[in-house]
Amino acid sequence: MRLAVPLVRSVATSASGSSAAASLKVGDALRSDLRRFTEDDVAAYAAVSGDRNPVHLDDAVARGAGGFARGRVVHGMLAASLFPALIASRFPGAVYASQSLRFAAPVHVGDGAVAEVKALNIRASGGRHIVKFSTKCFTNGADEEDDEKETLVIDGEAMAFLPTLHLTSEGIDE
Amino acid sequence: MRLAVPLVRSVATSASGSSAAASLKVGDALRSDLRRFTEDDVAAYAAVSGDRNPVHLDDAVARGAGGFARGRVVHGMLAASLFPALIASRFPGAVYASQSLRFAAPVHVGDGAVAEVKALNIRASGGRHIVKFSTKCFTNGADEEDDEKETLVIDGEAMAFLPTLHLTSEGIDE
Repeated sequence: MRLAVPLVRSVATSASGSSAAASLKVGDALRSDLRRFTEDDVAAYAAVSGDRNPVHLDDAVARGAGGFARGRVVHGMLAASLFPALIASRFPGAVYASQSLRFAAPVHVGDGAVAEVKALNIRASGGRHIVKFSTKCFTNGADEEDDEKETLVIDGEAMAFLPTLHLTSEGIDE
Repeated sequence: MRLAVPLVRSVATSASGSSAAASLKVGDALRSDLRRFTEDDVAAYAAVSGDRNPVHLDDAVARGAGGFARGRVVHGMLAASLFPALIASRFPGAVYASQSLRFAAPVHVGDGAVAEVKALNIRASGGRHIVKFSTKCFTNGADEEDDEKETLVIDGEAMAFLPTLHLTSEGIDE
C-alpha cells in the first residue's frame, strides 16, 4: 500500500513541542530555515563533543594540513545535526535508526546552511512507522551576493521511526 | 603496498594540539576514554544543534512515543561525535569524508560510552592518506555494577583523510 496524505512542503526547524500528528507521503520534502554557523557555535560544539580538531579552531591548520583555502571549517557532524533537528521539528518523538553521511564540501564558519530531507519510503514497523529520507545539506555562501549559489555539502540517507506520523487514506507499505 | 608501522592500541580523547605525525596500520584500533553524558551535555548539544526533540529532553515523551523505558536518551549524533573526536585526537588535522551510523541501542543520560575505531584500509590519495575505519560505540551502564557489561549502541564506518599520518617501511595501498 502507498501513503497518500496532504502535501508537506516546508517546515521551520523550531520544534513547537506539540505532539500533534503531522503528515507525510513518499516524495514530500522538508526544508529547514537557513542556519548560519558562527565561531561561537563551533566553540560550543567542540566543548560538548570533545572534538577539538584544529581544522575547526585554527585557520593556519585548516589552510595547511586541512587544505581548506578559506580557513576553519564547521564540524561536519554539527552540520549533519540539522537533519535530525529538521525531522524532529516536524515529528516530535522521532527516533533515529540510521544515518549515512558523505561530506562532499566544507562548511566554513559564517556560511549559511540549509538542510533538506525527502521521504523515499514509508513502512509500518511494530505499530510505528519507519521512514527512509534522503538527507542533503547545502550552503549558499557567507555573502549576500553568494546567496543564489547553492553548494551540496552533505549527502546521505536517514531512517527514522516517526511515532507522530499521521496516516490517512491509502496507508503505507507493510 | 601495505603499511607497517608501530602498533597503536590506545589513545586518549584529549587532543594534545600537537601536529606530530602519528602512526597507524590496518587492524590497529583506537579506543576513547569513557565519556559519561550528562543532562547538561544534552542541553548544550540541543542548544547548538537546534535539535530539541523531546525524546532527549522529556522523560514522559521518551517513555511514551519514544518507547525508551529508561526515559530520556542522548542525541545519537552527539554520541556519534565521539568517532571524529577520537580520530582527530590522534591525528590532528584529520578531515572527514564520510560516516555511516546504525543506532543499534539508546544511550541514556548518565550512561558511560566508549568509542572504538579500527583501521580497515589505508590508501594514498592526492598526497594525503585516506583511512577507512570501523566505528563502534559501546555503553556500560550508569551504575558501577554494570561496568562489566558492554552494549553496542552505534555501529558504522568512517572515511577520513589523515594529513598527519606517519608512514614508515612498507607503505600503503595505492
